[in-house]
Amino acid sequence: MPVLPSGYSIRRVESSDYEGVVETLKVLTVVGDVTKEQFEETVAYWNEVTVKSKGESMKAYNPHVITDDSGKVVATGNVFIERKVLHDCGLVGHIEDIAVAKNQQGKKLGQLLIEHLSDLALSRGCYKVILDCDEKNVGFYQKCGYSIKGVEMDRRS
Amino acid sequence: MPVLPSGYSIRRVESSDYEGVVETLKVLTVVGDVTKEQFEETVAYWNEVTVKSKGESMKAYNPHVITDDSGKVVATGNVFIERKVLHDCGLVGHIEDIAVAKNQQGKKLGQLLIEHLSDLALSRGCYKVILDCDEKNVGFYQKCGYSIKGVEMDRRS
Repeated sequence: MPVLPSGYSIRRVESSDYEGVVETLKVLTVVGDVTKEQFEETVAYWNEVTVKSKGESMKAYNPHVITDDSGKVVATGNVFIERKVLHDCGLVGHIEDIAVAKNQQGKKLGQLLIEHLSDLALSRGCYKVILDCDEKNVGFYQKCGYSIKGVEMDRRS
Repeated sequence: MPVLPSGYSIRRVESSDYEGVVETLKVLTVVGDVTKEQFEETVAYWNEVTVKSKGESMKAYNPHVITDDSGKVVATGNVFIERKVLHDCGLVGHIEDIAVAKNQQGKKLGQLLIEHLSDLALSRGCYKVILDCDEKNVGFYQKCGYSIKGVEMDRRS
């Protein structure tokens, strides 16, 4: 199992991570013109939604960042926890929007982030954690302990 | 576009749908020993979680049933709405746990339910709706307007 480079750390997203998170997400897809206010409002929303299970209440959204030795955001990802009726009213973790800054690749930050988010979801009682990825990233996620389960399909507005 | 058989209707899940929903979900996978109380608590949780976007607040979970002409639950499915930073702090609908009672197949209830849940998510502002399925169901979802997007992967506890 890889370890974070010296001085790097992993923590929950904060409102003050606006520039770092938006910049990092741009490697992934369209971010759009997200303002500081919209970002802060999204983080506030993520902080307030809870999921309840077996008498416990915990955060449903778990957005995280990895910061480098100067405190700059260099990777980001989220896992949210869904409550179902299936599997004894079980919980499922959904990993979303994993992005690593281009100049940070090769440091296993993606793998470390996936491990962290997966462990977080499983430790909170999820019976499984799922994610959707491009065909070309299957090998990477297999190294992170994931197996091919099915097909992701989408419909756009 | 197919239409519901005479006397059938589609509506949001209610607490009183315990037997019907649990029975219908059993065609899909393990439901487990879900008690009436656990079901009611899950429905209450689904009813209370909101997603906020552009000043509006709406239900994040949108569990639905189709009932037959006697009021019996014959199909069920859910779409929950996730809030992201990507795509201008956009919303994504996740379709989950679509199940149709075995003796009701051939009436296009699955397709009607998918259309209903997809339209609900898109009309509330989701820029896309996604779902994960088995390879063997790809053709069915293509008929519902979905396209193959990627690979679903999972990790179990």
